[in-house]
Amino acid sequence: MSTAPSNNRLNRQQAESFLSSLSGHYYPNSSREFLSGTNDIQVPFRRIHLSETLHQPTPGVKLPPNEPVDVYDTSSVYGDPDATIDVKAGLKKVRENWIQQRHRESQQNNHGITQLAYARRGIVTPEMEFIALRENMGREHLENPITPEFVRDEVASGRAIIPVNTHHPESEPMIIGRNFLVKVNANIGNSSVSSSIEEEVEKLVWATRWGADTVMDLSTGRNIHQTREWILRNSPVPIGTVPIYQALERVNGIAEDLNWPVFKDVLLEQAEQGVDYFTIHAGVLHDFIKLTAKRVTGIVSRGGSIMAKWCMAHQQESFLYQHFRDICKICAKYDISLSLGDGLRPGSIADANDEAQFAELRVLGELTQIAWEYDVQVMIEGPGHVPMHKIQENMDEQLKHCHGAPFYTLGPLTTDIAPGYDHITSGIGAAMIGAFGCAMLCYVTPKEHLGLPNKEDVKQGMIAYKIAAHAADLAKGHPGAQARDDAMSKARFEFRWEDQFNLALDPVTARSYHDETLPQDSNKTA
Amino acid sequence: MSTAPSNNRLNRQQAESFLSSLSGHYYPNSSREFLSGTNDIQVPFRRIHLSETLHQPTPGVKLPPNEPVDVYDTSSVYGDPDATIDVKAGLKKVRENWIQQRHRESQQNNHGITQLAYARRGIVTPEMEFIALRENMGREHLENPITPEFVRDEVASGRAIIPVNTHHPESEPMIIGRNFLVKVNANIGNSSVSSSIEEEVEKLVWATRWGADTVMDLSTGRNIHQTREWILRNSPVPIGTVPIYQALERVNGIAEDLNWPVFKDVLLEQAEQGVDYFTIHAGVLHDFIKLTAKRVTGIVSRGGSIMAKWCMAHQQESFLYQHFRDICKICAKYDISLSLGDGLRPGSIADANDEAQFAELRVLGELTQIAWEYDVQVMIEGPGHVPMHKIQENMDEQLKHCHGAPFYTLGPLTTDIAPGYDHITSGIGAAMIGAFGCAMLCYVTPKEHLGLPNKEDVKQGMIAYKIAAHAADLAKGHPGAQARDDAMSKARFEFRWEDQFNLALDPVTARSYHDETLPQDSNKTA
Repeated sequence: MSTAPSNNRLNRQQAESFLSSLSGHYYPNSSREFLSGTNDIQVPFRRIHLSETLHQPTPGVKLPPNEPVDVYDTSSVYGDPDATIDVKAGLKKVRENWIQQRHRESQQNNHGITQLAYARRGIVTPEMEFIALRENMGREHLENPITPEFVRDEVASGRAIIPVNTHHPESEPMIIGRNFLVKVNANIGNSSVSSSIEEEVEKLVWATRWGADTVMDLSTGRNIHQTREWILRNSPVPIGTVPIYQALERVNGIAEDLNWPVFKDVLLEQAEQGVDYFTIHAGVLHDFIKLTAKRVTGIVSRGGSIMAKWCMAHQQESFLYQHFRDICKICAKYDISLSLGDGLRPGSIADANDEAQFAELRVLGELTQIAWEYDVQVMIEGPGHVPMHKIQENMDEQLKHCHGAPFYTLGPLTTDIAPGYDHITSGIGAAMIGAFGCAMLCYVTPKEHLGLPNKEDVKQGMIAYKIAAHAADLAKGHPGAQARDDAMSKARFEFRWEDQFNLALDPVTARSYHDETLPQDSNKTA
Repeated sequence: MSTAPSNNRLNRQQAESFLSSLSGHYYPNSSREFLSGTNDIQVPFRRIHLSETLHQPTPGVKLPPNEPVDVYDTSSVYGDPDATIDVKAGLKKVRENWIQQRHRESQQNNHGITQLAYARRGIVTPEMEFIALRENMGREHLENPITPEFVRDEVASGRAIIPVNTHHPESEPMIIGRNFLVKVNANIGNSSVSSSIEEEVEKLVWATRWGADTVMDLSTGRNIHQTREWILRNSPVPIGTVPIYQALERVNGIAEDLNWPVFKDVLLEQAEQGVDYFTIHAGVLHDFIKLTAKRVTGIVSRGGSIMAKWCMAHQQESFLYQHFRDICKICAKYDISLSLGDGLRPGSIADANDEAQFAELRVLGELTQIAWEYDVQVMIEGPGHVPMHKIQENMDEQLKHCHGAPFYTLGPLTTDIAPGYDHITSGIGAAMIGAFGCAMLCYVTPKEHLGLPNKEDVKQGMIAYKIAAHAADLAKGHPGAQARDDAMSKARFEFRWEDQFNLALDPVTARSYHDETLPQDSNKTA
């Protein structure tokens, strides 16, 4: 323990150095561009510039240029070479005006302020317009482009959510729904006693650099409030949390001592800070716990086991289930989305698709309809560990019981025999369930089941999941998703190596692998 | 170039050191065991020993021990701590007696010597019995175990092949068919001018350590014959080649100068050496070449482009197609299996499932029936680059047109945007097509499209593909496939860390990831 202070200083210095080095392009041959909507809507994206085709079929006849490829970008100012970053000041509040206007309207007309409330009333919010531009990436000329009205209709029907707390005006709107690009969530967390704002922001920036669409902050420890504040004020992506973790800290880690007033306090605290979605394990009912008795791996969800312990100790129905309408009222006030947790998800291939899992799923469907009564947006969390032939059933059951609410799954891992490579075992399952209609994939890093991920693990997990999400987008036929593949394939056929590197999900690695065996520049053009 | 000689010496020394270090266990807490069949049949496998469950539910009541897990093992003597390895002497000829007996029978009764010929005559060969034991791994008590008679019937119907040249008696029998475990092929190759027996054997051993079921030797250069000899005499797994590569060297790299006599000579040379299966691109017909004109990536198969060039230059039908019956006669004599190459496979998502690909596939179906006339075993090669929603169609078309012959695919890659990670983009496709019934998966390494794989790349490619194959085995419900997953899950639930590491596909990596964050021994038992 004697080395801890100097380690802390070193970590902080490294994070500061990382943040100060952010100015300048990270992705080669790319520029930061904006799609402009009505009023002040500005959607940032990355444009990858390509070189000319070298081999001219007819001498003197110039081929048309290779058009740049525009890509969805979650890095916000952290990927903008012209931006200056001040983590103590936080990000610009891009949604502030829109939120204020909705608050005024809501007070005048006594209606809800959530995106779902607006969508149901037939109103396209600036967030919806932003999202339509962002999902299309300027490819409105394609068949079936995403229109603002389509976004509104998907939100109104509950098939998609826009997780944006009114107290998180820094976030850039994004949408989670099966008729949009498949999204990826990265978990970050800090269980150490001491950290710094620079270290927490570094984790966030790192995850979004590799494409995280949302980030869940699973931090614990006594600085949990401060850590979350640092993250939220500097996050351009929606932030999710599992409030029961903080509630458990309030009662010194003793699950039996949890109760509704403690939990409600935590919800209000996090709501005020600007958390965009809450994972709530309200479907772990007292009667379902016995269904897990014969499992190989029992209850593996942390939230699920906390609630199971509480129910058993009190021989009562879960207070989350009992107070679900109270939870919805809080969410409605801030436009916080609910991510209904799967506390009984399977923790192994052996336990996949069992009655415990599906019993909880049916309750999550009931809770979805209750949340919708309050105009609260809802998504449903899913497993976990599922062999390939049982993945479709997961998606089918979710659609059947949860009334079309978006599905948000961890993996699923398709086998249990490869710890150290669970980004791959689960990337397979994630791609499949994404293609079947799962709206957001929670990433898994190579350290899953083994330890805490470091920066390299976060990167490896994110890349595996961006591959899975993109493979699913292709399979679903999302408008324009194939443009980047086609540009890469053409560059490959024409031996334009620089363009191949620049178009890659990870340009630096692609280039270094090529240079290992063919280092000369001449090998990059022919 | 001045450093080449010392590099060569260094490479050779490293390989020698690798081979000499092979004695002793590589996989921790494992032992080499054998399943005994009739006569001299001895099937090697690896037994992973597990520790006791620590947490006793009732004090004094001992729980039943955790049974060891037996796993299919392709490493042969290279994974046997009691074996001595002499690469100059080569491996023991385990199949020699069986082959001699079949030669005697064949001369007496004037019938074919291939496994297909025997299977059709209702005879279970020692190879078939070996395979039944190997596929079951001692799990004959399970529902639907693999019996020798089932193996025979699958071979007789053409749904499975046993690629074993009578001149490769060192090989341990294995089967490729959709009603068996999904197999993985690793490509190795050497294009440098100078190599050594130790280096070539090292590549082979390295690939089989990570589970390669067959190895394709894609070496080129003037030492091609010697290199192949080294590999074959030391290979316990079937070796495949693409004979057109060597034929092209014979004509100094000028595709137009190829002809049947040159090609036939190469086939005979390789047949005598013991090559177990030949990739032959006999389905690239003259008329099909124009179908590739509008593709984004044209013809990407090397064999395919050689044959296309030949057909265009001569304005004639492919000599491989014209002489296909002659090829079959050679294969029948040595029991060499045919792997009908997909010379027009798509090289990009844009080109997937197009008419060029399927036109060739239909011809491969015709050729399959011709090969079967000669009792020659056949499998069909497949793509390549296919988005997820078009994978099932590939499998369906192959089954429909190729009369049930096993499918053997490269990947397929499900997106083109992640060079550097194509073991993952393709691992997704490989797992899916494996679950749909593809019998063997040709691995892809992280260096695909970028450069030549090194040892670490080979390992990463193999692990991704063992994951894909195993995930597919689970999905297909292969008897006993889930035993390893279940043992892992139980170890995980009981916090038996050592058992988790030992059961992993890559025990060393699993352990090191765990130790990075929790180095103390006490963290491995509770």
